[in-house]
Amino acid sequence: MVREDHDLAFMLRYENIASYEEGMVRILDRRVYPTETRFEVCKSVMDVRNAIKNMVTQSAGPYTAVGMGMALAAYECRDRGEKETLEYLKEASYLLSTSRPTTSKRYASITESCIPVALNALKEGRKADEAIREHVYSLNDNRYSRICRISNYLAREIPDGGAVMTQCFGETIVGMMARTLKEEGKNVRFFCPETRPYFQGARLTATVLSEMGFDTTVITDNMPAFVLKNENIDVFTSAADAITMDGYVVNKVGTLGIAICAKYFGTKTFVTGDPDKFHKAIDDVKIEMRDPKFSLEAMGVRTAPKGVKGYYPAFDITPPSLITGIVTDIGIYDPLNLNSYFLDGGEGEY
Amino acid sequence: MVREDHDLAFMLRYENIASYEEGMVRILDRRVYPTETRFEVCKSVMDVRNAIKNMVTQSAGPYTAVGMGMALAAYECRDRGEKETLEYLKEASYLLSTSRPTTSKRYASITESCIPVALNALKEGRKADEAIREHVYSLNDNRYSRICRISNYLAREIPDGGAVMTQCFGETIVGMMARTLKEEGKNVRFFCPETRPYFQGARLTATVLSEMGFDTTVITDNMPAFVLKNENIDVFTSAADAITMDGYVVNKVGTLGIAICAKYFGTKTFVTGDPDKFHKAIDDVKIEMRDPKFSLEAMGVRTAPKGVKGYYPAFDITPPSLITGIVTDIGIYDPLNLNSYFLDGGEGEY
Repeated sequence: MVREDHDLAFMLRYENIASYEEGMVRILDRRVYPTETRFEVCKSVMDVRNAIKNMVTQSAGPYTAVGMGMALAAYECRDRGEKETLEYLKEASYLLSTSRPTTSKRYASITESCIPVALNALKEGRKADEAIREHVYSLNDNRYSRICRISNYLAREIPDGGAVMTQCFGETIVGMMARTLKEEGKNVRFFCPETRPYFQGARLTATVLSEMGFDTTVITDNMPAFVLKNENIDVFTSAADAITMDGYVVNKVGTLGIAICAKYFGTKTFVTGDPDKFHKAIDDVKIEMRDPKFSLEAMGVRTAPKGVKGYYPAFDITPPSLITGIVTDIGIYDPLNLNSYFLDGGEGEY
Repeated sequence: MVREDHDLAFMLRYENIASYEEGMVRILDRRVYPTETRFEVCKSVMDVRNAIKNMVTQSAGPYTAVGMGMALAAYECRDRGEKETLEYLKEASYLLSTSRPTTSKRYASITESCIPVALNALKEGRKADEAIREHVYSLNDNRYSRICRISNYLAREIPDGGAVMTQCFGETIVGMMARTLKEEGKNVRFFCPETRPYFQGARLTATVLSEMGFDTTVITDNMPAFVLKNENIDVFTSAADAITMDGYVVNKVGTLGIAICAKYFGTKTFVTGDPDKFHKAIDDVKIEMRDPKFSLEAMGVRTAPKGVKGYYPAFDITPPSLITGIVTDIGIYDPLNLNSYFLDGGEGEY
């Protein structure tokens, strides 16, 4: 099995994102990493669902976690007959994929693909849980290869001696882009907005970039306009939780504001990820509203007085007019011309 | 003596902002308010200077604090002759007014005005420290009257049933605007970005508005674009640390980003405060860079990994093209036409 993750930052390696071993899923708790390196231990499908719901892992982390959850589901129903197994796995697939609403279709494409894998394994006398684990690793291999190509296209847009603004975490793409820039010998400064309320930018993006040897500055979420104006930023880049076929980008709340400012200052905005065939138009997307209390506290400490309301949209929507290009595994596309991606042979399975 | 502050929120009342009593200045510590109500006790001019430097009080708070610092200086040199007293007070004025660079000219206009007050009092056999305290209160009375007029002009731009986005604290203007809206019976929702790294929006603005009975929502600093798009915001408003005669607004970092987004969504941006005769052009303004470590922590808890850099410009600069109007004590002016304010009789002493 190809494992492309050995030279990536700690938290992007398969076994650290989420792993499965005989009746147990372990997920790196990104809510506390890197201050603390702890793994959430899940002993049931419901545990995995809740871990994702509660942001133990996020960004692309759940792609591995829901798969490992399916391995656990196969373990849970190991003594049942074929029909009951099928039913059990279908229910598990539903529970895992709907753990968060905005990305549930992506999660479902993974969890549903585990069901025939399990049934085939059982027919051939192999263990279904282990078959699913290997299947999920091979999906990861495939995704990592594709992300590697995406990252190479993105790296081309970043000049030696340049500066890049990130948004939220960006996951494996950030790690692979950093690896590519390193291989190309490019010296690049990174500015990472901290990404309230969970500080993914400060904790995760900055950790990956700094671990991989780049000059990394963490700014608060009210500083992007100042930095775009004063620090010669060449590229603003973010990943996406969904890129709809009509060119809209759904990503961590804050992306829209930075993209508006980037446009204002003439900075290019590149969004990484493939067009999402599950979402024909932006109207199909449901924006998840999370527990409002999180905007009233920081690192677990209350900030606001009693009696005020919180507010927490997980994502915002950036229109195609603000996006310079969608960086896919087969090249960079105009957000208003995403059909070409599929016409050109793109698979869109990121 | 007129005291216009009796029906304002706790932290906006004179005696709570900063007070002087026989050799001692007490300043409300806005870094911990409202979680904790504590006063910083200053027993020397250097203590007052450091308290302002360290953000014990900010926004318009230092206008009272530097004045009380001058009363303390007069106390410190109470046994000296006239010439030595003058020298001592001049030095104190310099130390207090330069405690923060961007607003030092405003501070100096207050501290310098205390010197003749002290000398006159001494000539007439009165205590110089008490004379300065009364002088500073009368400057406050005058400022509060003028802010009351500013707030009335701002309130006219806010419709009943409307929604307003604030930025950072906004001080007495926020309190007086709220009082005016209340008197007019207007029902208004407020959205307050939390204002990292010190959370003045979450802690101070939200406390004042909520204490005065308004529906108040605290958002994180990456949510303004989402809220402007989805919550029917009628007005974005901020105060200013300086409004230059060529129409630029210097205010808490983040103002620029919200103003760019407000313009993008067609929301009006009103900046309160008088044109600043001390700053003919934006090039005169020096942007204070504060200790970068503050972008690496929140509520005293470290957020980012070791090895990354912090970054902390205290202010940013919003150009006149993004500002609907400058709300002054004699009316609302186009930012590109601020000379008219003085031609119309404005005093610009805010």
